[in-house]
Amino acid sequence: MSNIMLRIAYDGTRYVGWQIQPNGVSIEEKLVQSIEKVTGEKVTLYGSGRTDSGVHALGQVANFHTTAHIPPERFAFAINAYLPKDIRVMTSEAVPVNFHSRYSAVGKAYLYQIDTGVIPSPFTMPYTWHVPYSLDMSALKKAKAAFVGRHDFAAFMASGSAVTDTVRQITALEMMEADHILKFRFTGNGFLYNMVRIIMGTIIDVGLGKLSADKIPAIIAEKDRRQAGMTAPAKGLFLERVFYPENDEKSKKVFDTALSLS
Amino acid sequence: MSNIMLRIAYDGTRYVGWQIQPNGVSIEEKLVQSIEKVTGEKVTLYGSGRTDSGVHALGQVANFHTTAHIPPERFAFAINAYLPKDIRVMTSEAVPVNFHSRYSAVGKAYLYQIDTGVIPSPFTMPYTWHVPYSLDMSALKKAKAAFVGRHDFAAFMASGSAVTDTVRQITALEMMEADHILKFRFTGNGFLYNMVRIIMGTIIDVGLGKLSADKIPAIIAEKDRRQAGMTAPAKGLFLERVFYPENDEKSKKVFDTALSLS
Repeated sequence: MSNIMLRIAYDGTRYVGWQIQPNGVSIEEKLVQSIEKVTGEKVTLYGSGRTDSGVHALGQVANFHTTAHIPPERFAFAINAYLPKDIRVMTSEAVPVNFHSRYSAVGKAYLYQIDTGVIPSPFTMPYTWHVPYSLDMSALKKAKAAFVGRHDFAAFMASGSAVTDTVRQITALEMMEADHILKFRFTGNGFLYNMVRIIMGTIIDVGLGKLSADKIPAIIAEKDRRQAGMTAPAKGLFLERVFYPENDEKSKKVFDTALSLS
Repeated sequence: MSNIMLRIAYDGTRYVGWQIQPNGVSIEEKLVQSIEKVTGEKVTLYGSGRTDSGVHALGQVANFHTTAHIPPERFAFAINAYLPKDIRVMTSEAVPVNFHSRYSAVGKAYLYQIDTGVIPSPFTMPYTWHVPYSLDMSALKKAKAAFVGRHDFAAFMASGSAVTDTVRQITALEMMEADHILKFRFTGNGFLYNMVRIIMGTIIDVGLGKLSADKIPAIIAEKDRRQAGMTAPAKGLFLERVFYPENDEKSKKVFDTALSLS
């Protein structure tokens, strides 16, 4: 029995999200169907976590157990033969039998992209939140800095979530600007449901002058979702990378690779 | 009567190319229909030149004459309201009545993208030629240099083309590498039918060791299409910019903008 880990890139535009559900086609479903065609076995696929409808991935991670005699690195090619073009297995490898994509993960990085140009091009539109206004860059920097660290992020979780421990640590929140495209990279030990998108909406409120960055510590302390900003659109969000104690060099390589055109 | 110039970005994947033709949907047709809805007039749209099926554009240029009383810069927004999302008018402006997108043009820049990674991601696949082999970078540099200058490019024109004057000048051929993505920018006073794609196929033959860069001057001199390399796929090609004696600063701005995410 082998335990096979996949790193997966997908354009989430056409899907209901990662997880299998009755109301539409999911990424997980497409992957499971393709893996079952390759292995001839029923498989369970363990993902590092869900992504919502419309959210993209550069380096989602999932694993499955199989008795199929295929060289581990060849699974990527074999599975891709059955996948639609907007889902690609970028790498496959054998991992220790106790590796679990979700429980072994020690952190994640998400990328959020904003287009501040007047008119979004066909190449940016599906992958950015269009905010065609002048943003106060120094206010954005101050706002993002207020989120870094270990905080109770209850105010930045979609209401209705069943999670009770809402303390998370954001280890880095980088902002990169290239012409009219703003990219924010969130790195942390874990993220609550919609946390990146609600923080992003709040940071943009500060950039637009609707909210002062000085208010963010109080909003965090209040733990009230209604005090935070709007949930930024799904299409600007990318699950960029999942961190594990092992394999870190390889994950970095895949990450650099996937990003170069996005 | 106003003469309105449009700069247009499009993802050519779903189209038969720029020009209206009976066998499928063209970019020109989508634009003409949208402009006619906005102006309420029959219009003729003059493009800077055709692009083939599957070829993309970051800065195609076209113009039309109209009596509609709309501020020139608002045409972009009005026309976009009727266009599919894979075609966007990025800017619109009034130009002198004698301006013609094709006849006033003094040069063009094309971008060609190659993905040398093992597996193309969903984000690179529609916009690159996948060449998953190790390429000899110094041979590529030598090959591209051999094309720069004023040459008779008859060997690098699709056979069957009716053009008789096949002398063109390539003023610059830049190569940029970022991780596994290679970009080539061709700048010149004009290009023959399929010229960029045939030169690109020939350069890659050199990078793969199938052809010596030293042979290129002889291939140019022979003027025989069969001596040159294959025609590189349409999907890696972008019409990046059209140059005019006027408006050069504006065209540069649009160009920089459109490229930042591609």
